[in-house]
Amino acid sequence: MTSGGPLDTMRVAVLAEPGSIAVESRPVPSPRPDEVLIEVRSVGVCGSDTHYYDHGRIGDHVVTGPLVLGHESAGVIVAVGAKVDPARVGERVAIEPGVPCRSCAQCLSGHYNLCPDMVFHATPPVDGTLAEYVTHPAAFAFALPDSVSLDEGAMLEPLSVGIWACRRAGVAPGVRVLVTGAGPVGQLAAQVASAYGASEVVVADVNAHRLSVARDLGATEVVDVSSTSLSETYAGRPGPDVVLECSGHEGSTQAAIRVAAPAARVVLIGMGGDTLALPLGDVQNRELWVTGVFRYANTWPTAIDLVASGRVRLAPLATGHFELEETAAALTAARDDAHAIKSVIHPHGRPTGATTTGESAG
Amino acid sequence: MTSGGPLDTMRVAVLAEPGSIAVESRPVPSPRPDEVLIEVRSVGVCGSDTHYYDHGRIGDHVVTGPLVLGHESAGVIVAVGAKVDPARVGERVAIEPGVPCRSCAQCLSGHYNLCPDMVFHATPPVDGTLAEYVTHPAAFAFALPDSVSLDEGAMLEPLSVGIWACRRAGVAPGVRVLVTGAGPVGQLAAQVASAYGASEVVVADVNAHRLSVARDLGATEVVDVSSTSLSETYAGRPGPDVVLECSGHEGSTQAAIRVAAPAARVVLIGMGGDTLALPLGDVQNRELWVTGVFRYANTWPTAIDLVASGRVRLAPLATGHFELEETAAALTAARDDAHAIKSVIHPHGRPTGATTTGESAG
Amino acid sequence: MTSGGPLDTMRVAVLAEPGSIAVESRPVPSPRPDEVLIEVRSVGVCGSDTHYYDHGRIGDHVVTGPLVLGHESAGVIVAVGAKVDPARVGERVAIEPGVPCRSCAQCLSGHYNLCPDMVFHATPPVDGTLAEYVTHPAAFAFALPDSVSLDEGAMLEPLSVGIWACRRAGVAPGVRVLVTGAGPVGQLAAQVASAYGASEVVVADVNAHRLSVARDLGATEVVDVSSTSLSETYAGRPGPDVVLECSGHEGSTQAAIRVAAPAARVVLIGMGGDTLALPLGDVQNRELWVTGVFRYANTWPTAIDLVASGRVRLAPLATGHFELEETAAALTAARDDAHAIKSVIHPHGRPTGATTTGESAG
Amino acid sequence: MTSGGPLDTMRVAVLAEPGSIAVESRPVPSPRPDEVLIEVRSVGVCGSDTHYYDHGRIGDHVVTGPLVLGHESAGVIVAVGAKVDPARVGERVAIEPGVPCRSCAQCLSGHYNLCPDMVFHATPPVDGTLAEYVTHPAAFAFALPDSVSLDEGAMLEPLSVGIWACRRAGVAPGVRVLVTGAGPVGQLAAQVASAYGASEVVVADVNAHRLSVARDLGATEVVDVSSTSLSETYAGRPGPDVVLECSGHEGSTQAAIRVAAPAARVVLIGMGGDTLALPLGDVQNRELWVTGVFRYANTWPTAIDLVASGRVRLAPLATGHFELEETAAALTAARDDAHAIKSVIHPHGRPTGATTTGESAG
Repeated sequence: MTSGGPLDTMRVAVLAEPGSIAVESRPVPSPRPDEVLIEVRSVGVCGSDTHYYDHGRIGDHVVTGPLVLGHESAGVIVAVGAKVDPARVGERVAIEPGVPCRSCAQCLSGHYNLCPDMVFHATPPVDGTLAEYVTHPAAFAFALPDSVSLDEGAMLEPLSVGIWACRRAGVAPGVRVLVTGAGPVGQLAAQVASAYGASEVVVADVNAHRLSVARDLGATEVVDVSSTSLSETYAGRPGPDVVLECSGHEGSTQAAIRVAAPAARVVLIGMGGDTLALPLGDVQNRELWVTGVFRYANTWPTAIDLVASGRVRLAPLATGHFELEETAAALTAARDDAHAIKSVIHPHGRPTGATTTGESAG
Repeated sequence: MTSGGPLDTMRVAVLAEPGSIAVESRPVPSPRPDEVLIEVRSVGVCGSDTHYYDHGRIGDHVVTGPLVLGHESAGVIVAVGAKVDPARVGERVAIEPGVPCRSCAQCLSGHYNLCPDMVFHATPPVDGTLAEYVTHPAAFAFALPDSVSLDEGAMLEPLSVGIWACRRAGVAPGVRVLVTGAGPVGQLAAQVASAYGASEVVVADVNAHRLSVARDLGATEVVDVSSTSLSETYAGRPGPDVVLECSGHEGSTQAAIRVAAPAARVVLIGMGGDTLALPLGDVQNRELWVTGVFRYANTWPTAIDLVASGRVRLAPLATGHFELEETAAALTAARDDAHAIKSVIHPHGRPTGATTTGESAG
Repeated sequence: MTSGGPLDTMRVAVLAEPGSIAVESRPVPSPRPDEVLIEVRSVGVCGSDTHYYDHGRIGDHVVTGPLVLGHESAGVIVAVGAKVDPARVGERVAIEPGVPCRSCAQCLSGHYNLCPDMVFHATPPVDGTLAEYVTHPAAFAFALPDSVSLDEGAMLEPLSVGIWACRRAGVAPGVRVLVTGAGPVGQLAAQVASAYGASEVVVADVNAHRLSVARDLGATEVVDVSSTSLSETYAGRPGPDVVLECSGHEGSTQAAIRVAAPAARVVLIGMGGDTLALPLGDVQNRELWVTGVFRYANTWPTAIDLVASGRVRLAPLATGHFELEETAAALTAARDDAHAIKSVIHPHGRPTGATTTGESAG
Repeated sequence: MTSGGPLDTMRVAVLAEPGSIAVESRPVPSPRPDEVLIEVRSVGVCGSDTHYYDHGRIGDHVVTGPLVLGHESAGVIVAVGAKVDPARVGERVAIEPGVPCRSCAQCLSGHYNLCPDMVFHATPPVDGTLAEYVTHPAAFAFALPDSVSLDEGAMLEPLSVGIWACRRAGVAPGVRVLVTGAGPVGQLAAQVASAYGASEVVVADVNAHRLSVARDLGATEVVDVSSTSLSETYAGRPGPDVVLECSGHEGSTQAAIRVAAPAARVVLIGMGGDTLALPLGDVQNRELWVTGVFRYANTWPTAIDLVASGRVRLAPLATGHFELEETAAALTAARDDAHAIKSVIHPHGRPTGATTTGESAG
């Protein structure tokens, strides 16, 4: 830690109102008995952070006071609560940002992501991790092996969404997968589908650069749907057994459902409008299963393994590195630059050599 | 059989064009080696039969020539093909009306209802069972115990839809079920949900008579949604873990989805419009699974058991009994009479004492 | 509570050494913030209590100091911790006796019964509930409806074992079940199998009285295996799809495995020797699944529902009622009397009219 | 085909009695309407072939007359029956050797491997494929892409066993796998486990050469259990979530069960004695699932995909190539040579350059 120890103050990036981020000084928190204090080193920017920055709300979640953004995080444990093994001080960890109650029916049955009392980083009014230090329950801070960087550690959060979707969809060898939308989540979902052994991973988007990245990261086929429709793509061959819908676009979702194979699973990951005009005949006559994902449960160990083993590559997705004081620029990079995929903010300083438009070893 | 033996002619009720049924004479068919010849005794009328009678088509299925309706059937084996055990002659059987190819990927993996080469009674251009005799593969004619009547045997077909829906939805003790729509399929789905041990079976409809029947048949609660909405019904208590949607009504489906519990399964059984405006936030935030059912697979043994054990009561649903010559009246009874639920046609004659508006011992 | 309030002393039945139970006075405990204080009214005797009483150990679990027995319990909340809704005071509750850590991988994935840090009533060195008062986490004390008595509330614990076994085995309509062993757990497992809709529930034992009770409680068939073997029983008819082995007897288990249907699930519930000579050809050629149950998870809400709805009848199993001072007699009743099934101890006094050899309204 | 066409005679290798193979001349069979006639090019030798050769029986399967061995086969379609697309003539195919009845409850529910009327190559009295030509139902002859050789096509049969085991066991990312026994099936099971995304694949054997092959083919760790026990291997780290037991050795199976993680799946693939002394405490206290595999169902498309994509490598396992007249030598090669893994017999002649102790391009 910096001189002065964990009781000192720290810098925090605060969203005071839409479009306005200020770096403030706040006291460093103290860990409760089952918590650890983490020096935050890498925080990935999620589309939801940008949405709060731009609009001050996402659906029913409204920012009504100053809010610290950031929920894709990794760092180093610098202090532990009374019930935590002191040997964990110094441990490099990835943070699972949602802490469920662990006593309700959802929690006790393994669906803790559906806990009605979930406390989740950067979901109003709970503060996120764009701070020099955060406290967090020890059970939700996962040790990283040396082969996984802190930047990668931060990106285990969006990776978890892909894992959760593939688990729910039953991706395995013999299964054909279609990913619609090649943003950060789509790129990760496609890689995870490959890691789960999918026989075919087709990625569809209208952004040629993102399709090129998808191909580099292992998609077996990419489709530019601005020129080739999904019905053309799948004419004369079996449709996908699994659709991982990451675009949030209604027409894209409908097109994917129309080509889905009998008994296919369609997982709606992308956030779209309030309703989706679901093609009923397709769902009924081919007995499709349509569902959504709400975050994830029990994914970090698998996520760490996928990255450590090289089956999923996260580093190419970190396309910009920012200081805490550059938070606003980080929040808008992916929104404004067609080549940017994921921005990473470093509350303790950008690594030497990293830039706002390039990679870093993390 | 009637005098003259199986090579003689038989009477058949034919839909020549919408609104016109004629009884014709046709040769009695001969069973192929793996088939049996069945004397048809009871044929239930399905809403699809009425729809073909009224409109000459259902979606892409168009009646382009004379068609024999009827696919809910039971009777007695009167002759067998060369490869079938001759001891089956005299056996009372229920007929599973769809015969899959049994060699495609869907068939070999147990989803034979999704076989692209399915041959199904009364789906154009395949003739149905409103005839004195039909041939059918022996493996799809199921022996009935003495305790199950032939009328009940015919109704195992719509019962199978309820079984298939409950299987797909995972109904069991501890599971709360909502059935929307109390027509024949809804009545059966509700009874099946109880037989699967559901902790709660709420049936919703706007027809007070049908709700009364549902209550008599074991629903734990009925809701007249013309006066009480589903959101009022479920205010302050847990929503359903399973929705069996049997109304085909968009507003009803949406209301059911809105009250569904986290991780609920929503099974769309009723036929509605081309699309359903699916409430996305509900599906995503509570990770609902939405699916449809297309007929059923491997349900007849379970259906027979549920009726034989008294766990499901079919007799009260048979509200009218008709001669083959009364087919047109049978087809329109449920359409025109709010108290009618299921008509049964008897190609070999209505049982003594049975009427077009009452029950029979079958 | 008794006069003097929760800070007073209470009576506790303590196993000092094998064969010796003494009633002692101890301080009434105080609930922690997430706990409730429960006035214990009914405690069922389990075979494990008797085994500790007789032998001082079960496998690796050794009684090394004074131990309070009892883990099948119900009572009334008389005080609550700071974080618990005070409205729960006065609530009649059933106690789930095991409290898992809720932070390990097993807990977070819904298998909390496999938590390595489980704290479980009456498993050394954790004290049980044969006391006037116990504290317990509020989340593991389940409100009972008026229609469920406190005696029944206590027996939800062994009922949970049956529920857990049927869940793991996939019991449902169409499934044939064989229960081997008609002791308390076998009786409950058989009833639960019926409640899950099993098409056939055959109960096998050598004790004619217990078989008679099983038949009264809904078994579709009972087999006295002292005169008729399982292979004779199943000759010429389909074997069971599910075996719920409750006898702990090797020969019985092997016989059940030999008659099990293809793809059957065999759940080993009864405690037997260190090893079972598993018939390999049966397991491999018919792809049987063989497993055990270790307690249960997430069963109390379902258990309450099964009893409240009348689908499972617990009252006939309570064959003797005892005062706390009669604990030794209660512990040995089922061991020594072929007609006794389950003893219930009442730390606050046996209900009026209840006897050590008969039923009570609880 | 040879001159003279499909009605001519062909050479067949026949097991007349244990230890005696003779090449005879038989008529070339004619395909029935749903069958194809296949020119057999590659036949892998299975341990069961060798066992019949040595002992004349496997358990209840007794060779009572002349029997053609061989059930791991690939070749080229040279004629088709009346109902088969004539365009399939010339197609390179792998043969699924078991043909189920497709009308029984097991077949219709997707478990056709458990069909009681299965007709399976080289299981007495059904002849196998060590012949120049065989007929086979078209639905069980799978087209091979150019990238899969006929030798690999033959080995899809043992590969299917590995696929079936991994499917039943739920292998996926995050799952740790232990394979006991590194013979052909163990080598394939280990590779399949990797292809399904297993986080860890430990292979245990006593044969250093086979362990070396396993490591080359992707095992993350190998254990020579002649020097290091499984309990030592897993001391201080999580045990396997899945055990794929391929040795058929009782001590090895027990050791694997003892280290298995809570809720682990143990799949008994290797053939051992009549019984296994199953450690009951492990199965019950950690709720292990123990099962066997009996062949496979619906695996060929996945098997083809795994080989075509390079995720599974079969070529290194083919360690010897034989003429039909060398069948006896092929049958005993793996039995007698510690470096031999899989022999391939070529009824139409060994490929140029291939030898009885080395690889071939197939």
